[in-house]
Amino acid sequence: MKHDPTITDGDKYKTLFENDRVRVLEYRDKPGDKTSLHSHPDFVLITMSEFKRRLSGADGTSREREFKVGEVAFGKAQDHMGENIGKTDTHVIFVELK
Amino acid sequence: MKHDPTITDGDKYKTLFENDRVRVLEYRDKPGDKTSLHSHPDFVLITMSEFKRRLSGADGTSREREFKVGEVAFGKAQDHMGENIGKTDTHVIFVELK
Repeated sequence: MKHDPTITDGDKYKTLFENDRVRVLEYRDKPGDKTSLHSHPDFVLITMSEFKRRLSGADGTSREREFKVGEVAFGKAQDHMGENIGKTDTHVIFVELK
Repeated sequence: MKHDPTITDGDKYKTLFENDRVRVLEYRDKPGDKTSLHSHPDFVLITMSEFKRRLSGADGTSREREFKVGEVAFGKAQDHMGENIGKTDTHVIFVELK
């Protein structure tokens, strides 16, 4: 992986477990926190908190999005960075697929 | 799949989405609810509520277990059935791997 988030943002990403099929990461941050540009393979994201986020791609494009608890989304492999632009802590589970 | 839970227990299992890599199911029940014997391929389970459960295998063995919010576990392909033996609703996300 080019920019492993557990290395670029090891204070926010924690590996819950890993085997030959998946790596499961827990991500937590606080309002104002930002991540560095990092990579994910195909993944499923599950939101464990409500939060507001600016998501930026490697190409400089960005978008803002609000999430509720219990949202589930599939993401294709991508490089991105994020910023907590809301007033609540972020808590997310990433199921990265191998 | 032998016993698809969206068929055996379609009132409790809902397909959130499916593609060539995963099928993501949301499971919800209430105290006293039981599922029929059903099958899952390898999966990652994420708990969205606190609950207590009796889990029984196809061979008749069973065990009781309490879960907290935000627990994440990997399960190998298996047949099982479950019963909510606590006092709280169950809310779980299953990421089934293909």
